Amino acid sequence: MQNFELTILGCSSATPTSKRNPTAQLLNIAERFFLVDCGEATQIQLRKFKIKFQRINHIFISHLHGDHYLGLLGLLSSMHLLGRTEELHIYSPPELKEIIEVNYKYSQTYLNYKLIYHPHQFINYDLIFEDEKVEVRTIVLNHRIPCCGFVFIEKPPLANISREVIAFYKIPFDQILDIKKGGDYLTPDGEIVPNEKLITRKLSPRKYAYCSDTCYDERIIEHIKDVDLLYHEATFLSDMEARAKETFHSTAIQAATMAVKSNSKRLMIGHYSARYKDLQPLLDEAQSVFANTLLAIEGESTSIDYSN
Amino acid sequence: MQNFELTILGCSSATPTSKRNPTAQLLNIAERFFLVDCGEATQIQLRKFKIKFQRINHIFISHLHGDHYLGLLGLLSSMHLLGRTEELHIYSPPELKEIIEVNYKYSQTYLNYKLIYHPHQFINYDLIFEDEKVEVRTIVLNHRIPCCGFVFIEKPPLANISREVIAFYKIPFDQILDIKKGGDYLTPDGEIVPNEKLITRKLSPRKYAYCSDTCYDERIIEHIKDVDLLYHEATFLSDMEARAKETFHSTAIQAATMAVKSNSKRLMIGHYSARYKDLQPLLDEAQSVFANTLLAIEGESTSIDYSN
Repeated sequence: MQNFELTILGCSSATPTSKRNPTAQLLNIAERFFLVDCGEATQIQLRKFKIKFQRINHIFISHLHGDHYLGLLGLLSSMHLLGRTEELHIYSPPELKEIIEVNYKYSQTYLNYKLIYHPHQFINYDLIFEDEKVEVRTIVLNHRIPCCGFVFIEKPPLANISREVIAFYKIPFDQILDIKKGGDYLTPDGEIVPNEKLITRKLSPRKYAYCSDTCYDERIIEHIKDVDLLYHEATFLSDMEARAKETFHSTAIQAATMAVKSNSKRLMIGHYSARYKDLQPLLDEAQSVFANTLLAIEGESTSIDYSN
Repeated sequence: MQNFELTILGCSSATPTSKRNPTAQLLNIAERFFLVDCGEATQIQLRKFKIKFQRINHIFISHLHGDHYLGLLGLLSSMHLLGRTEELHIYSPPELKEIIEVNYKYSQTYLNYKLIYHPHQFINYDLIFEDEKVEVRTIVLNHRIPCCGFVFIEKPPLANISREVIAFYKIPFDQILDIKKGGDYLTPDGEIVPNEKLITRKLSPRKYAYCSDTCYDERIIEHIKDVDLLYHEATFLSDMEARAKETFHSTAIQAATMAVKSNSKRLMIGHYSARYKDLQPLLDEAQSVFANTLLAIEGESTSIDYSN
C-alpha cells in the first residue's frame, strides 16, 4: 500500500507559544512530499523531526497571513545553501511572488534552483497539481483575506487480482495490468469476463482536505464530501463563537459540524489559539459532535488508510 | 549597580539546525531591552526563555540577510495581537521598511502601534540612539551586503561618595548628586575640595560591541577599542579561512585576533556554521589567541560587569 501520511509541523494560530509553532504540515502521498503552509520556523521543525527537506518539491500556501508563510523565505534560502538544484513549485496567492522577490532583492539572494509559481485562481475544485498518483484541488475558504484550502486526492489505486483467478482464466501476464486498472478480460475463445468478476477488492481513492483558516461556511461542504481525513481549523472553544465569527475563524463545534455534514471519515482540528494551554477541552467539544476527531500535535504523524 | 546583561536567543549562521536558531540577542541595559537582530523564530525563543517581549522598544537589525531579520514580521504581528500600543523603534538598513510594508499590505495587517524607522547611514560611530543611560553607535562591517555592527555604551555612571567623607566635610544633602556627577565641593569657607578627593571610585562606562557578520577587517578595531565585551562572529574554524574570506565571514582565530587588537576585555563568539555540531574546537581555537573567550549559547545570559 502506498504511503498517505500527514505529519504536523505546527498547530498554533497567529501567536505561537513556547510549545506550539505556527501552521505547517507535511503530507507524504506515494513519496511525494507536499509542504502545506509554512509558518515561521518550519525549517527548524523539519530539522527537529528529521525530515529531509530537499525532498519537498511542492509547497502549498493557503493565504498570506504571516503565520502561514513567514517560514518560507528561510526554508528556500536553506535549500539553496545546502545545494539544491531541483526546481521547486509554489502554489499560493499571486502576491507571494512579489514578497519573495523584494526580500531576495535586498539580501542579494540568487537561488541555485528555479522557483515555479502557480498562483491561486480562487476557484472551487480548481485542479492545481496532477501527476500519475495524485491530484490537488483548491477550495475557496471564507477568511479575512483571500484564502484557499486544498483537497489532496489519490488517483484510483489498482485493484487486486488473485493468483487463483489468473490460473482459472489462464490470463496472460501482459494483460494483468489492464485488468487491475479496471479492464475486462477477453478470452482466446472470444468470451468477455467482466472486470468485477476478476478483481478481489477495489479500493476507493483516499482524500485529505485541508481547511486552514476559515469561518464556518457550509458552502465548503460539497468540496470536501466523503474525505478520509478533514483538517479543519478550530481556533476557539464555542464560548468564543462571536470572537470566531469576528476574526473569520471557527470553533471546535463548528469544525466537527463540518465533518458531520461533509460525511468525513475522520476530523483533525488545529490552529489553536494561544489562550488554550490544555487542548483537551477543544477535543472534548469536537468529539461531542463528531466522535472520530483527533488533535493536531506537532511531530505526530497520522496515516490515512483505505476506508474499504 | 544597574543591569548590563546579554542573553543569546540564536547563535547559528544562515542555516539553522535543530539545536541552534539564527541570530538574535537581547541586551538589557538599565531595564532598556534592546533586541539585536531578529532571525527566524526569535519570538518563539523569547517565549521559551520567558522574556516579556512587550518590554522591547528598540530593535537593531545589522543587515538584510534572512538569518538576521526574518523573525521580525512575526514578532511585530504578535506584539500587535497581544495588545501593544507603545511605539516601537527599528534601526536597520533603509530597505527593511519596504519589506515590512509589502508583507503587511498583502496580509492586510494594520498595527495598533507606531513603527518608527531609523535607517542606518552606514557611518562609523554614528550615534543612532541616546537617552540618559545609554548611547548606541553603528560600526560599518565588511560583509557581502551593507552591514552595520553596533556599540552599546553606558553613560558614565555616578561615582560613589562615602558617609565618612560627607561627615568630614559636612556636605549638605542637596550637593551630593553634583559631586557624584563629577563636581567639586565649595565649602562655606570658600575652600574648593576637588572631586577626586571626595569620591571613592569612579567607574568606567561599560561597552558592548556587536559584530554580527563580517570578514576580518582591521578598520573595525578603532571603533571597538577597550570594550568590556566584544561579540564577533566566528562562522568557521581556521582550516576554512579561504571559505570565510569568500563568504565575507570570519574564523574563530580572526575573531580572537580582533579581541586582542582592540584590547577587548572579553570575547564572545557565535554565528556558527551548521557543520559544527560540537562547538569546543571553535572555542579552543579562539582561546589559543585570546584566553578570555566564551561561546554564545542560546538561553544563556552574560552579565557585563565594571572592569575597575
